[in-house]
Amino acid sequence: MVSGWVETVRDQKKVQFVILRDETGAVQLVNPATRPAEDGSEQDADALALTDTISNLAHGTFLTVRGALKHDERVKLGGVEVKIGTLEIAAASLPETPIAADSGLDKRMDWRFLDLRQARNNLIFRVQTTLEHAMRSYWVERDYIEIHSPKLMASPAESRAELFSMEYFGDQTAYLAQSPQHFKQMAQAAGFGKVFEIADAFRADPSFTSRHATEFTSIDSEISWIDGYEDVASMQEELLAAAFAAVKEKHGAEIEELFGVTVEVPTLPFPRIPLAEAREIVAARGYEIPRADGDLDPEGERQVSAHVKETFGHDFVFVTDYHPEIRPFYHMRDVETGLTKSYDLLYNGTEITTGAQREHRIDVLEQQAAEKGLDLEGLEHYLDFFRYGVPPHGGFGMGLARLLMLMLGESSIREVTFLFRGPTRLAP
Amino acid sequence: MVSGWVETVRDQKKVQFVILRDETGAVQLVNPATRPAEDGSEQDADALALTDTISNLAHGTFLTVRGALKHDERVKLGGVEVKIGTLEIAAASLPETPIAADSGLDKRMDWRFLDLRQARNNLIFRVQTTLEHAMRSYWVERDYIEIHSPKLMASPAESRAELFSMEYFGDQTAYLAQSPQHFKQMAQAAGFGKVFEIADAFRADPSFTSRHATEFTSIDSEISWIDGYEDVASMQEELLAAAFAAVKEKHGAEIEELFGVTVEVPTLPFPRIPLAEAREIVAARGYEIPRADGDLDPEGERQVSAHVKETFGHDFVFVTDYHPEIRPFYHMRDVETGLTKSYDLLYNGTEITTGAQREHRIDVLEQQAAEKGLDLEGLEHYLDFFRYGVPPHGGFGMGLARLLMLMLGESSIREVTFLFRGPTRLAP
Repeated sequence: MVSGWVETVRDQKKVQFVILRDETGAVQLVNPATRPAEDGSEQDADALALTDTISNLAHGTFLTVRGALKHDERVKLGGVEVKIGTLEIAAASLPETPIAADSGLDKRMDWRFLDLRQARNNLIFRVQTTLEHAMRSYWVERDYIEIHSPKLMASPAESRAELFSMEYFGDQTAYLAQSPQHFKQMAQAAGFGKVFEIADAFRADPSFTSRHATEFTSIDSEISWIDGYEDVASMQEELLAAAFAAVKEKHGAEIEELFGVTVEVPTLPFPRIPLAEAREIVAARGYEIPRADGDLDPEGERQVSAHVKETFGHDFVFVTDYHPEIRPFYHMRDVETGLTKSYDLLYNGTEITTGAQREHRIDVLEQQAAEKGLDLEGLEHYLDFFRYGVPPHGGFGMGLARLLMLMLGESSIREVTFLFRGPTRLAP
Repeated sequence: MVSGWVETVRDQKKVQFVILRDETGAVQLVNPATRPAEDGSEQDADALALTDTISNLAHGTFLTVRGALKHDERVKLGGVEVKIGTLEIAAASLPETPIAADSGLDKRMDWRFLDLRQARNNLIFRVQTTLEHAMRSYWVERDYIEIHSPKLMASPAESRAELFSMEYFGDQTAYLAQSPQHFKQMAQAAGFGKVFEIADAFRADPSFTSRHATEFTSIDSEISWIDGYEDVASMQEELLAAAFAAVKEKHGAEIEELFGVTVEVPTLPFPRIPLAEAREIVAARGYEIPRADGDLDPEGERQVSAHVKETFGHDFVFVTDYHPEIRPFYHMRDVETGLTKSYDLLYNGTEITTGAQREHRIDVLEQQAAEKGLDLEGLEHYLDFFRYGVPPHGGFGMGLARLLMLMLGESSIREVTFLFRGPTRLAP
């Protein structure tokens, strides 16, 4: 017995072929066609009906077939076909499919549930499953605690501009968290030690780039008793190497086949380059970064990655020691250099992570927040976390879709998101 | 070297003891006190300073101690103490702790990050971690696909009343999903086969009961090609048995010690009782259910569970075959009985799950939605999923906090939620 949906029907005069697909693959079904006899002689009624049913099968119809397995070397899909005995339709599809494999991205997103039937799209989410499970397993084996931080917040925290807000039981206002930053730090004050969370985050960001969404899955970790951001970076590179190894082992061949991409398990340690040096490298390659604030722009990131790939043969690079002006107030600063103890992680030319040691000393933290012109009253609950003791700590946040997009060589996070959400995209 | 926070200080004249705690346990630190000599003779300055520092340690201060490990059978906490060599304060706590172990629940929630330092609260989240990882491992080993469904929705779906809504880029309205129901069903239309998700869900529910929150972690699964709800129920009971076994193995002794509760790994299969029979059982036990709609009320659920415990010695029971009036429109109905192919799962007297086979035939689904008086236009995107074929499928949703609460014998989900959210609780 096999069940799946109809991918194609080849309805020839003497024989009918159906390609039936499910999430594990595809199989060819075959039926010797029985047509009404031209001379009017009687035919087997069941055989006539079966042939007629197959002739009228719409693409996408879900059905179950019972029959005999036949081995035939000439058959694709593993050299096996099923001779149809009985065919039971579970749910017929409308005859006209609204999208084709070559439809535009926006059209495909309108009909994402059909678009996801493509074998390569199905593979994306099996890769996602393996990737996440390998990361969680890495953490669980090392006694990290999994947290589920709230997404509803009473205060707008860092940047009010990019937050969704809503009425909350009458006169209250709730904001949707743009990251679990506050709460994973709270877990440090709570003595949780090492925590992780893979969960939704929301940004009311009007951007339409291939790397932005208003709702995304954020991979977060935060750990206590670190000596510097290096402890965070070395955990993150181990985590990624373990996750990539799991993906390569389970899906490497299929990714090669369907995406034309070889999954490379990164070697440890990843290269590290201070931002100032990265800027020099970019300049030496003849690119002038147009930003005035000293940060890399997307082309600058690509140039640094290209340099690292050429020099070290590595897909990843930690760019470190950012200036406080381009970092949030809670990043710890080095007393001697005045730079933050933080990094960005670039992968194949695009930033996927910001990590840092956090400032855990309440007086320094308050001063840094005030310097940024932040409203300390709005940060009251957050600052409270530091008044009753908190160990030195740090962590990172990483976008799941960006990681998948870059791993599979896709051009947009929309391709690797189950259901993308953007400024003009709230459905289906 | 040991690091942690100060749980208690015993500052005796000749010797000082500090209990230092971290997420893995506690250790006793000891320091022979050096006080200013009464006769004015000179003392070691470092020793005087160390003694003074310890005398002034506030509860909750995070510190690191280097020193010599001493074995002493008389010492609690594993018969080990550390003789303090050097002591370095990472972050001092304010001297007055705003809550005590016996503070009221609401007060403790105001200072949840301090409340979570209690050993039993820390254990809750280590149990949560193990429970979830065991469930995900069960699914991943069986080739389920993990999905991250969107929480932002364009249409209010089932019941507008319980949804949070917000302005979305000008003239659009976004709703927060109260469950991944639509999207895990979409995954079936997409040919994903078997899926799971553990993620946030939101209900604008003004309830103040011990079992309700406005934001909660929902454990969801949905599977294709089922013959009835029995396929879902048998997966769920296997899943729970595996998860309970993992928790018992890793934390059973500690749960016994800190909660006075023995974790029972449920035997398979769980008992199953049709709702009509469950109502008879409740009536025979002398309780009259006040609800007119035929469903069990909370006391009814407790009575059924008590009966099952007495009769079968089991903590779980599937109550099955609910009337369509008390079920959503998308539950499949049995042609002969007219009842839905659905169940509730009760655990220790409380409902933790609703599961069902879904109606996958578009014409029947539309008819059932119309019968419930639902606006078919608002369901347009959902109904589209069924127009291009979808296999027979079903699944369940289960509240993580309810499961943890009942497993640990706690009285409220607030005790087992990292940061509870309710109608009057949005912070910290």
